[in-house]
Formats: sequence, C-alpha cells, structure tokens
Amino acid sequence: MQPRLTLVGAGPGDGELITLKGIRALRQADVVLYDDLANASLLEFAPAGALTTYVGKRAGKASLTQPEINALIVRLAMERGHIVRLKGGDPYVFGRGFEEYNHARQYGIHCEIVPGVSSSIAVPASQGIPVTCRGISESFWVITGTTRTGELSGDLRLAVQSKATVVVLMGLNKVEEICALYCQAGRGHLPMAVVQNGTRADEQCVVGQVWTIPQMIAEQGVGAPAVLIIGEVVALHPAYLAECLRSVSVAC
Amino acid sequence: MQPRLTLVGAGPGDGELITLKGIRALRQADVVLYDDLANASLLEFAPAGALTTYVGKRAGKASLTQPEINALIVRLAMERGHIVRLKGGDPYVFGRGFEEYNHARQYGIHCEIVPGVSSSIAVPASQGIPVTCRGISESFWVITGTTRTGELSGDLRLAVQSKATVVVLMGLNKVEEICALYCQAGRGHLPMAVVQNGTRADEQCVVGQVWTIPQMIAEQGVGAPAVLIIGEVVALHPAYLAECLRSVSVAC
Repeated sequence: MQPRLTLVGAGPGDGELITLKGIRALRQADVVLYDDLANASLLEFAPAGALTTYVGKRAGKASLTQPEINALIVRLAMERGHIVRLKGGDPYVFGRGFEEYNHARQYGIHCEIVPGVSSSIAVPASQGIPVTCRGISESFWVITGTTRTGELSGDLRLAVQSKATVVVLMGLNKVEEICALYCQAGRGHLPMAVVQNGTRADEQCVVGQVWTIPQMIAEQGVGAPAVLIIGEVVALHPAYLAECLRSVSVAC
Repeated sequence: MQPRLTLVGAGPGDGELITLKGIRALRQADVVLYDDLANASLLEFAPAGALTTYVGKRAGKASLTQPEINALIVRLAMERGHIVRLKGGDPYVFGRGFEEYNHARQYGIHCEIVPGVSSSIAVPASQGIPVTCRGISESFWVITGTTRTGELSGDLRLAVQSKATVVVLMGLNKVEEICALYCQAGRGHLPMAVVQNGTRADEQCVVGQVWTIPQMIAEQGVGAPAVLIIGEVVALHPAYLAECLRSVSVAC
C-alpha cells in the first residue's frame, strides 16, 4: 500500500462534466474526500468498498477547517492508501488545492493533480455567454469574491478599469460593493449576469446592467453558489436586450 | 435527421482530459470537425461510420478560413445531421467558438456547447503551478497573444500593473514584446514560465524571471503551442529557485 493523493476537479456542477482522467482516479480510490460543490453522483464511480467523506465547505454549514482537511488527507493516506480529493470546478482555482497538495507532499505522499472544467468559463457558457469573443473581448479575468481578510480583492479595483471580461467566483455576498465600484468608475452600464447553480438542473440566471443587478438579485431571490460575469460579452446573452428594455420601461 | 451542432472542448492535450459529456457527444456524431490542438486519439470515440475532418488551424499550416469552417458546419449539418466541432481546450476561450455557434444558429441549426478543461489553468497545473494560491494570488487573467490586428492586446498594458497571475495563450511569437512591457514597468523580476505542449507526453517547460525568459526560450528551443504564465505563483514551480541561482551564476 502506497500513500498517495489525487486532487480531482469535479467540474462546475453537471455530473457529466468530469474528465475521463478524473473518473479513472475515482475508480482507483480507497478514500474520496468531497466538497460541497462537487456533484455527489460522482461518488458512484468509486469502488464499493471505498470510504467517502464529505468535508465541506460552504458558508453556514458545519465543516472541517482547512488544517483539519490537510491533516485528514495525510492520516487517511497513511492508513488506507489512495485518497481522491474531489473538488468543485478545478482544484487550482480558489480551491486551496495547492495547500492540500503541498501539505501532503511534505509527508512524502505522492501527489497528482487532475484538472477540471472551471465554473469561471463553463457557467457563463451554459448561459450562452462566451468569456472571450473576437472583436468584443480579448481576455477574461477571474477574481475571488472571498479573500482571506474578508475585504474586496484589490485586483477588482484595477479590473473595473479593464476591457477584460471579469468573472467573480464566490462573490455573491459582495455583489453590492462590486457593483458600486463599477458605478463609481462610470461603468455602471456594463452588461452583467449572475448565475446560480450553473450547469445544474436548477440553474438560475439574472442578466442586466451593473447598476440594475443588486435589485434584480433581491427581487428574484438568487443565492449562492453564484458566478458573477461583467463585460460586453454579457450582451450576447439571449435575454439581455429584453431585460434592458424592461428596466427602462420600469424606470419610466 | 435533425441538423445540429455540438461544440466540444477537447481539453489541453492529454486525451484523458476530455469530459464524459464530450465523449457522449462524440459517440453520437455523424461528422467530427477537429482542430489542430485537439488530441486526435479522441476521434476513436466517434462511430465507425462518422466522417472526421481536420479543419486546422495552426500558423504556417494550410487550413480552412473561419468563414469556410462556418459554412462547412452548416452544409454538413444539413446533409448529415449531428456535427461535433472538437476544439482544443475550451470552445469559448479564444477558439472563435461563439462565431461558429452563432453562425449555425442563424440557419436554424440546434446548437449545444460542452465546455472543456482550459489550457489556461491545466497547463500551469501540469507544471505544479496553481493559477491562484491563498496569500499569493487572488486572481488570474487570461489574455490572447494573437489579436485580430496582430498587435499586442491593450489588456496586457494594464495586466503588467496588476497582481493577477497573467496567462497568455497563443503568445509565443510575442514573448519578447511581452517581456519588454514588464521590464519597462519595472516588473522584469517577476517569475515566469513558458510551457510547450502542456499535458502531453512531450511537454517542455522553461522557468525563470521575465527578463531571462526570451534568452532561455531561444537557447532551449521552445516552440508553439505554448502557454506563458507570469506572476508570483510561478515561484512555486519546483525548478524556480534553481533556475534563478543558475541565471545569477551565469551573469556573474
């Protein structure tokens, strides 16, 4: 028995958006430690005898702390062999995946990473929004809405000036602050979308302009987990024009 | 027979980094139109009777123009049914995927999109570089190196000032210009990596600091397709420190 760790990206929510390589890792798992955002149907790929354990974490739900998860990975790898750490989206996009990888490696545990489909790209796509589009956007900038300090990421202050498509993950509870930042920079009329549970059956989307979004979210009851998308490409969403006209008629 | 189009992300190169959903689309294909960057082994998932056609495109290789590809999709969908358009990485990351989707839709063709693992995240990961890392990077910014006009993207001028991890796709032939931009902004000492054929068996990587990279690329013969990664997270690459020491000793 060789202790080892495979960090696997589970994809954005739709259970079919895991990779073949991810499935192969799950099939060889002795233990699966899975996140809230990983589709639980993926556990069916694990062998019948494998231990499967939920380790969180979502705001408001009891779950293990990061040091506890790191320690659990090491202990279970030593005791049972192959740990698959199944993480929502891609393991290296705001998933603290590198910390888990690095911690395990310090104990001589062989570590591998299997990248996943990132919500930052796939969730906009599921709403018909390409993060890049020739003639409209030459880049996209993915920013966390939840920093270590709890404050808005300083990167957002530069992002509001840029022509990039800006994608904010884990940012729903900061949406008013983020929209205010755009409005203060004179960019409140940029197209913006907020997508809850992207790529899942219960996906819900709000689309409008930055200045209209906080009220629309409140009215339509959009909740976490959600992806914020800001930039000209959002105007390619099929409902964008209709929503803009509706806002104008409400305002009149 | 219903004409339809599924845009499928083939992933970054490793044939196992396609999604289950992508494989299911390939299994139902009447025609597969594939790119240079899509792993050709994936064609084996298509039914034996399916037409498989290479449509390019890579600099220097003869291939169809974008309007020709768009027209081919429509004609073959009308004649044969289900077209799978297999594109390297993710279809909506600089793949002109939206243009293909939008063109086909204008002919009443039912269109779907299956996102893929993007090279922008997976290629750094394959070298041990996380695009984000708590305490080091709160965002990553993915920028094309090949704009419509042939000039450097204006987004890069803002990116050099940012704390984001900057990832440039299709930018190898602009690497000197890009590095010069960082040096002019006083950021020539940022860690930087260039990865050719990321996630493939013949993957090759150069890691150093921005100011050292153009010469290292020339010496080590790195070629396209390559991903450029610039930012503090690159210092997490296992060879980074050794390379910096080597540069210093050469300079002395």
